[in-house]
Amino acid sequence: MANSARRLPRLLRSTASEAPVYGRTPIGRSWTLESASGRQFSVGRVQKKAANKGGVSRAWNKDGCHIDRTRPTGSGHGWGARSTAKRSNAAPLIGVVAVVSAVTYVANAVKAGSKQAQDETDDGAVQVHSDSDDDENDEGSQGKIRLAEVTKHDRNSDTKWIIRGTSVYDITDFVDQHPGGEVILRACGGSIDPYWKIFNIHEKPEVYDILKEFHIGEIDDQDLGEDGQINWKVLGDAAEDFAVDDPFKYDPERDPNLIVRTAKPCNAETPGNLLDSFITPVRLFFVRNHLWVPRTHEAPQSITIELSDGEEKTYTVDDLKKKFKQYTITATLQCAGNRRSHMSKATHGPTSGLQWDVGAISTAEFTGVRLRDVLRDSGCGVEDDVPSPHQCDDEDADKHVHFSSPSDTYAASIPLQTALNPQADVLIAWDMNGEPLDRDHGGPLRALVPGTTAARSVKWLGHISINSEESTSQWQRRDYKCFGPNVKQKDASPEVWEKAQAIQETPVQSAITNIIKDDDGKKLTTRGFAFAGGGRSIIRVDVSADGGKTWKQAELQKDKAKGSRRWAWTLWSADWPTDELKKGQEHEFVVKAVDEAYNTQPEHFESIWNFRGCLANAWHSVRYQVQ
Amino acid sequence: MANSARRLPRLLRSTASEAPVYGRTPIGRSWTLESASGRQFSVGRVQKKAANKGGVSRAWNKDGCHIDRTRPTGSGHGWGARSTAKRSNAAPLIGVVAVVSAVTYVANAVKAGSKQAQDETDDGAVQVHSDSDDDENDEGSQGKIRLAEVTKHDRNSDTKWIIRGTSVYDITDFVDQHPGGEVILRACGGSIDPYWKIFNIHEKPEVYDILKEFHIGEIDDQDLGEDGQINWKVLGDAAEDFAVDDPFKYDPERDPNLIVRTAKPCNAETPGNLLDSFITPVRLFFVRNHLWVPRTHEAPQSITIELSDGEEKTYTVDDLKKKFKQYTITATLQCAGNRRSHMSKATHGPTSGLQWDVGAISTAEFTGVRLRDVLRDSGCGVEDDVPSPHQCDDEDADKHVHFSSPSDTYAASIPLQTALNPQADVLIAWDMNGEPLDRDHGGPLRALVPGTTAARSVKWLGHISINSEESTSQWQRRDYKCFGPNVKQKDASPEVWEKAQAIQETPVQSAITNIIKDDDGKKLTTRGFAFAGGGRSIIRVDVSADGGKTWKQAELQKDKAKGSRRWAWTLWSADWPTDELKKGQEHEFVVKAVDEAYNTQPEHFESIWNFRGCLANAWHSVRYQVQ
Repeated sequence: MANSARRLPRLLRSTASEAPVYGRTPIGRSWTLESASGRQFSVGRVQKKAANKGGVSRAWNKDGCHIDRTRPTGSGHGWGARSTAKRSNAAPLIGVVAVVSAVTYVANAVKAGSKQAQDETDDGAVQVHSDSDDDENDEGSQGKIRLAEVTKHDRNSDTKWIIRGTSVYDITDFVDQHPGGEVILRACGGSIDPYWKIFNIHEKPEVYDILKEFHIGEIDDQDLGEDGQINWKVLGDAAEDFAVDDPFKYDPERDPNLIVRTAKPCNAETPGNLLDSFITPVRLFFVRNHLWVPRTHEAPQSITIELSDGEEKTYTVDDLKKKFKQYTITATLQCAGNRRSHMSKATHGPTSGLQWDVGAISTAEFTGVRLRDVLRDSGCGVEDDVPSPHQCDDEDADKHVHFSSPSDTYAASIPLQTALNPQADVLIAWDMNGEPLDRDHGGPLRALVPGTTAARSVKWLGHISINSEESTSQWQRRDYKCFGPNVKQKDASPEVWEKAQAIQETPVQSAITNIIKDDDGKKLTTRGFAFAGGGRSIIRVDVSADGGKTWKQAELQKDKAKGSRRWAWTLWSADWPTDELKKGQEHEFVVKAVDEAYNTQPEHFESIWNFRGCLANAWHSVRYQVQ
Repeated sequence: MANSARRLPRLLRSTASEAPVYGRTPIGRSWTLESASGRQFSVGRVQKKAANKGGVSRAWNKDGCHIDRTRPTGSGHGWGARSTAKRSNAAPLIGVVAVVSAVTYVANAVKAGSKQAQDETDDGAVQVHSDSDDDENDEGSQGKIRLAEVTKHDRNSDTKWIIRGTSVYDITDFVDQHPGGEVILRACGGSIDPYWKIFNIHEKPEVYDILKEFHIGEIDDQDLGEDGQINWKVLGDAAEDFAVDDPFKYDPERDPNLIVRTAKPCNAETPGNLLDSFITPVRLFFVRNHLWVPRTHEAPQSITIELSDGEEKTYTVDDLKKKFKQYTITATLQCAGNRRSHMSKATHGPTSGLQWDVGAISTAEFTGVRLRDVLRDSGCGVEDDVPSPHQCDDEDADKHVHFSSPSDTYAASIPLQTALNPQADVLIAWDMNGEPLDRDHGGPLRALVPGTTAARSVKWLGHISINSEESTSQWQRRDYKCFGPNVKQKDASPEVWEKAQAIQETPVQSAITNIIKDDDGKKLTTRGFAFAGGGRSIIRVDVSADGGKTWKQAELQKDKAKGSRRWAWTLWSADWPTDELKKGQEHEFVVKAVDEAYNTQPEHFESIWNFRGCLANAWHSVRYQVQ
């Protein structure tokens, strides 16, 4: 049987919606399969071919349809791996590829020289016990499968098994078809359950149906506990490697001052009263993770640039340090969802995602090399004078630089024009506040795209390429977009998503972070930050103690920031003699800022409300009882 | 007597305020004089030395103080001339130099080889009739002065006279001290009255007092008409050259469709219903002039770059065309005061300046060369990688490119960083919509600074220099600034002016320009423009038919614009089926736009109100009775 005939139909598109996963856009979906001839199949039409106990379950389309791979083979596994959405079919795949590909945190990096699992076998037949007949412990009673046997079929084995509940599945043939890419390898040789708890997009009948095709047996009773669940302890010392009960268990310790919005993945903001230093100490820098944090040996130690001829050029941190001019940039990073909790109080209703207060923003000094310099050195063929998409009808003019962490656990893109602009200061950075980048903030290497929403400053950066489309990741095509205030989540058709622009530069923003009464009670001081994207400096901050009826100008703190433009926030303060306030009454302190293009903040959230709750930059008001 | 002892004290600073002149900031002032030792004098302390009829009036400071010239000598006259504020003392001089220097439209360009008038004579004594004793007509009766005699003392004479009313003044020694620079030469040999009618800053006792010092006599009765005023006809054919009754008489014809806000100088906007073509025809392009329009032979035919060593490099239009790569940029130019009339209706009260509706904005294709290329070629020593003012404490890092039209009739500056950014597309342009730039729009050469308020795209561009401060012109330091909504004109201290940032990039803006009912009455169509500065494209336009309670998204017209970024507006339209509107009722149609940095427009004018009425970009609403 030819390989092509055994492949699974390509997962084509998603439609249904589902509850949000850790604050990410809820984009659960049902799968539709497509044959090479364009015919579409529901999951139920996939033919069950064989499901023998202890044997191999194989499924293929009865039409023997050709399947376009959405991921190239031979690009390596684990933290060094990556996926590239097939250009011609990228659009309809956005949701599927992007979302599920988030899960490629494959522990235990590729063992050198091990046979890579993408190579398809010529025949599906696998003798389960072929190499373990001599090991009695591996022999399942009554044809059942011992846990120790399953553990042998890990990512490095020719045949890859997973456990769901107490059932065992051989997914060897499915790995290449997995819309989420190679992340699924991480579960091989163990249970997939902890991953599905995180990526609960899988928890639906259609997915169970697909999995059913690959069922090969049940875990032997000897390896079950009294509760009927797997007892990993039977593996002895090896238990820890396979009983992945908590993928977050290696996450770094965090400062207890941070306000944790979700623990797993860790999303934690800096408390307002600690936002008043121009440079935020690393330990207090807000944390925004979409997954668990890679362990030091899992994170990429180099950057690979994909060249136009398909070749690659790799730079280690040392290469970067030696070869290119180093720059230090003072940059404020802000989550696009900062102040979302304020927008959620608008009359239009709540928004989806992490309900940040004012602290999903921090400032640090980042050191690295200009992406521009590395791209030009790599031979990827970029010109200094990149043609503008406005200037010509040439589709190639609209190019994007894609950043991805290993195995597309996270991916995003920025316009090539930004990358090449020497005044845009886009860095590949290894240093934060004078120390090597820590794990939580993307070490050893991250992208730094100053003046742009933090979601584009990809952490654990391993791979860079230039493409004619934006990244197809969900973080580019879904999560970080805004819509008109009239667009409810239920109205968000694919066309609406497509039409909305991925957030890059961010609008002017400000917040009150602190109200302090001086010792003798004669003065209140309001303090806060103001920040605009695109390197636009803050030129004025207006403050009010009466809800915006009257204003005065705040004092702007004169901190020097490094960089070609103003990439850092401006801290401000305003004093209010208490005898000018009304004692015993609640005052509504308000702040709004003006950037160098005289952009201002909207007064209310209603006019900028969007169901994603992004870019919540209406005036910030804080009620305070004057004593 | 040494020259230094005869010079007038330097005009130091201005304080008083006055009614606006043609929509410009009212910044009338009283003069304060300063000696080299730092002592200040009121005007009254200037000593009158001699005031003989038919002789010469001279004035100097009794302390014999040294006078810093605020303008260099030897820089030529007329359209090729220029002024440079003395760096070390620029700040306190801002108002004076800038405002009055507006008046340097010196007609009748320098006659080649004529002795330049800046050369000071060694002695103040001038024999009025020394070279005209043989001409009986020049002889004034009873020591009075004949008009023909006055005309000899024009800008090319060693001694320069002017007439005010029927009095004659020898201002030879004052020319160098005139805060407005050499423009005063234009009046020499004739009456200064028509100029003072325009620059009515002069119409105050302090100025009269200064002038009084230079009085040398009265016009002979033979040259007066029955009304007691000067009868220019006595000069015969030469009358036209000296009887400047209307400096605007050579202004070009304008299209009658333009809505004229002021005729002299011409300020006229494009009517809304003609703003609906992506490229505005030149004849309909809004006109914003601060003075009369130079005649073709008066406008500079070349650009002179001032180099750091004081040398100059000059490029003719042909030089530019031959030497540099040419670019065509589609750019929208908008007056910073566009929509000012809307802001004036805010509860905070009216604003000063031209009360534009929506039409002080237009779009054209401009062709020219990049300023960056010319600067680099000129040898003025700019580096590609200009240090940022944020990056270092070096004051030199904060540099500005100054543009001026001849004799500083208009001057403004932009950050050097903008000029050098290849993606900023700053041009020296000679062509507009495929035709040579016409007179009204700055021909033969103008600056084009796309994405920046039109006031920086200096017309009739003749001179460029790089300085460590912004231009000291009033159009840089005064007129084009915004303030907090709490700052009233009376509160605008010099510190307040200084602190406010000169407008460069402009915020997101939009307007409804047209509401059209279709033939069968079933549909209303609202049309308009949206535009943001800084090359930020418009990504969404929200429209409402109920005053902003509910919204929908307008259709964005997909016009290609040439340039590295989106420098052109985006036209939009939205249809409203009439059966969804309430017949017979007035609807409030509203528009607001979103730019690519997700900046939005403020809902009301109150929060952005500024007494200058600049950058009026609140939501635009139009009430319309649905029939």
